[in-house]
Amino acid sequence: MSAYASLETHFKKINDLAHVSAIASWDEASMMPVGGGQARGQAMATLSVLMHEMVTQTQVGDWIAEAAQARLSAWQSANLREIGRVYREATCMPSDLVEAQQLATSKSEQAWRECRAANDWNTMKPLLAEVVNLSRREAEVRSSASDLGLYDALLDTYEPDVRSAQLDEVFADLKSFLPPFLDQVLGSQAQETLLPVTGDFSIEKQRALGMQIMGSLGFDFEHGRLDVSHHPFCGGVPEDVRITTRYDTESFVSAIMAVIHETGHAMYEQGLPKDWTSQPVGNALSAGTHESQSLLMEMQACRTKEFMNFMTPLAQRSFLGTETNDPAWSADNIYKLYTRVEKGFIRVDADEVTYPLHVILRYEIEKDLIEGKIEVSDLPALWHEKMTRYLGVATENNYTDGLLQDVHWPAGLFGYFPTYTLGAMTAAQLFSSARESFKGLAGELGQGNFENLLFWLRENVHSKGKFLSYNDLMMQATGETINASYFKNHLKERYLLNR
Amino acid sequence: MSAYASLETHFKKINDLAHVSAIASWDEASMMPVGGGQARGQAMATLSVLMHEMVTQTQVGDWIAEAAQARLSAWQSANLREIGRVYREATCMPSDLVEAQQLATSKSEQAWRECRAANDWNTMKPLLAEVVNLSRREAEVRSSASDLGLYDALLDTYEPDVRSAQLDEVFADLKSFLPPFLDQVLGSQAQETLLPVTGDFSIEKQRALGMQIMGSLGFDFEHGRLDVSHHPFCGGVPEDVRITTRYDTESFVSAIMAVIHETGHAMYEQGLPKDWTSQPVGNALSAGTHESQSLLMEMQACRTKEFMNFMTPLAQRSFLGTETNDPAWSADNIYKLYTRVEKGFIRVDADEVTYPLHVILRYEIEKDLIEGKIEVSDLPALWHEKMTRYLGVATENNYTDGLLQDVHWPAGLFGYFPTYTLGAMTAAQLFSSARESFKGLAGELGQGNFENLLFWLRENVHSKGKFLSYNDLMMQATGETINASYFKNHLKERYLLNR
Repeated sequence: MSAYASLETHFKKINDLAHVSAIASWDEASMMPVGGGQARGQAMATLSVLMHEMVTQTQVGDWIAEAAQARLSAWQSANLREIGRVYREATCMPSDLVEAQQLATSKSEQAWRECRAANDWNTMKPLLAEVVNLSRREAEVRSSASDLGLYDALLDTYEPDVRSAQLDEVFADLKSFLPPFLDQVLGSQAQETLLPVTGDFSIEKQRALGMQIMGSLGFDFEHGRLDVSHHPFCGGVPEDVRITTRYDTESFVSAIMAVIHETGHAMYEQGLPKDWTSQPVGNALSAGTHESQSLLMEMQACRTKEFMNFMTPLAQRSFLGTETNDPAWSADNIYKLYTRVEKGFIRVDADEVTYPLHVILRYEIEKDLIEGKIEVSDLPALWHEKMTRYLGVATENNYTDGLLQDVHWPAGLFGYFPTYTLGAMTAAQLFSSARESFKGLAGELGQGNFENLLFWLRENVHSKGKFLSYNDLMMQATGETINASYFKNHLKERYLLNR
Repeated sequence: MSAYASLETHFKKINDLAHVSAIASWDEASMMPVGGGQARGQAMATLSVLMHEMVTQTQVGDWIAEAAQARLSAWQSANLREIGRVYREATCMPSDLVEAQQLATSKSEQAWRECRAANDWNTMKPLLAEVVNLSRREAEVRSSASDLGLYDALLDTYEPDVRSAQLDEVFADLKSFLPPFLDQVLGSQAQETLLPVTGDFSIEKQRALGMQIMGSLGFDFEHGRLDVSHHPFCGGVPEDVRITTRYDTESFVSAIMAVIHETGHAMYEQGLPKDWTSQPVGNALSAGTHESQSLLMEMQACRTKEFMNFMTPLAQRSFLGTETNDPAWSADNIYKLYTRVEKGFIRVDADEVTYPLHVILRYEIEKDLIEGKIEVSDLPALWHEKMTRYLGVATENNYTDGLLQDVHWPAGLFGYFPTYTLGAMTAAQLFSSARESFKGLAGELGQGNFENLLFWLRENVHSKGKFLSYNDLMMQATGETINASYFKNHLKERYLLNR
């Protein structure tokens, strides 16, 4: 067997183990009774060590070197490139550092749950400091293995080929645009009247409507399911994608939009290149690209007046048993509910206008933290100062709704936050291109017809897997690299011009 | 690390992979959308090859030899014995035979689905003959590795330490007892009037009643769940047991009893020795012992007049919304429904009186088949002859309801059938001992109080894992090895004396 063929066989096996691991993870979050947790944790750890051993065995390095000399197709070359990336990312880290990180993040994540609830920064501080120290060591290790800067070396593990210099540029654009824009929107929305929406929002009815909408969007139920978990997510494998939501029996608004969001993620997975799903090149491109697919569905395609015209009668029939002229149940009122803007403390509850400010704040802080320009003890003051400046919200002594609100830092996930807003901007830019390709697209979506949109996404994003770099994919799909103006125009249209 | 400690560490890892495999298998049967099947099949095959490689690696043999010289506790010794068994069972089979079997059974199982539906014996015959040939080779290989007879060498993989000589004896007892007894019961039941039971048997209501009864029996919902699958089963892991049932919205009778049956299996798993769940000695003892735990709950503890007095008002409230004096809904009528005896074609639909005859027929045939005394081409005539003799049912040219009704032979599972009836007899014998220990037991169960019964089972069966052999366990728990008279007495009491 050629070296390249050996690599494919080997990574197919690793992918098979990843399949079982993904299903067990989904099960853990959506099905497992609480008493199963300890044994499951041990089983998953064993599986993950085994997969790590398979990725890093020395033969893999030899095969990679030998395969580099072989004549390969374009996709095989891309696959070899991605295998090399997986191998380097796994082998460059000394095992004592990996172990120390597992120990520190496990302690810090556990403490975080209690500290957040108790508004307790003093207990959290030394644990977080240890995590930051180890992430700085990780950044050094990855930086010397890759010639990237310290922060870029971490960012690259979530968003390959995107650098902080590029983010700095687009984020600066947003940062100057958003605060005055936000005040304008809030001024205009202060005039709007919102009517409360009531009905029978039982879980079964919400679930049925959610599945109906998933079907309209193009979710393939032969290769996936919808279930319930504490936080909505998209898991499973491309052949069997598992999405979840959570239900509030007082209101359908958030569960249905979470379903739409996760359906965007899921259709990306379902559309990955069929011939390559068992290989690294067949995986989703990056965290930001994945988020772009969920936000494209949620924010660009569905949180629109047109889509509300489609969804509102369905929702009326689901939750009232019949259609109605009740103004609270009008598409216009529901649209206003879905596009309400507010300055708030919490990132995950934020609307799409304020969300990037939450992200930019975190991005700026974590970059300085990893580069050693600030220390963990500086965080409370910095958080308060930036929240006040960007969002007019004071967080002094409020850790619960302040810097302890997210699990990312206690979990050591430095470099992840910016991918959310990169995803939002990417979504706007891709959607704009799709609309250029299909002139009647907005009208189609207003009829619940997502065929052309999905076709365009399959063609330009999903079927590419990791074949292209992020920047190349954006060039091919939209004619330019990431540009904040599409996202800004989208916000202007939705929240000011087209109100 | 000592050789024994190395073995424990190694088999803990294998157990962790078995955990993930068990959850994924449960998922496949109860959750997976149809399109996920192919990728899942490949993933499970990879995992199973990996586990096989880990069991058979040469180091394991060395560790076993070295650990045999060490000073070990009684449980450690038993664990070493069981590790040795797992190792020998896995290593004695040549890999070309294993592969040939996988290929042949996969083809034959697939064909079986269609042949059964189409009553097509001619297509099935050569495929089954190939499976039988390979099972005969397996029997030879296992026989020479173990000094057991040909059939015993296969039986031993499901029922360690039980030999066909022992089965021949107890089955002979049943075989002479059952046919005349059956005619007596049928004569007596011909006088009984059964009233049809109607109500709102929606799935949600059946599920709620099932869970209520599971709780009464002692199922621990912190370590398990109830779901739906095509055939009821008990899967998962001791820390997280997954049972399933299926629902018929025309009648609650079979779903609830299936839940009770699987709860018996599940409580065995939940009661396995906590300190040893990650090791071979901590597993369930055998197929027959597992079946004894489900049948003890279903047939001994719950399919009784006393239990019907407990369950009937619960069922009335569940399915009618209120209690009732309607004679169709009386405990007596429901009891009669649950203890109806009929001569039929199909093993899985059989009642507890006719069931052993279905099993003995299969046992006799498969034993002769493996020992080369008969050939696959003899099966139709033999099946017809024995069905007519044991059950008065002719199966000439009826393969669908005759010898093609079970998947066991097409799947190569020779040696499995007798464990069903061994389980039924074991259940009767154990239950009789439990009643000796707790004089008020029948009354307690009639109140839905299973505490003492579960305590006795935990003490005498569940917590033993594989520490004792089957015969030793029966000696310790009941004072004698398996004896058909307990089962016969149980049948006489239920179907004649106590009617």
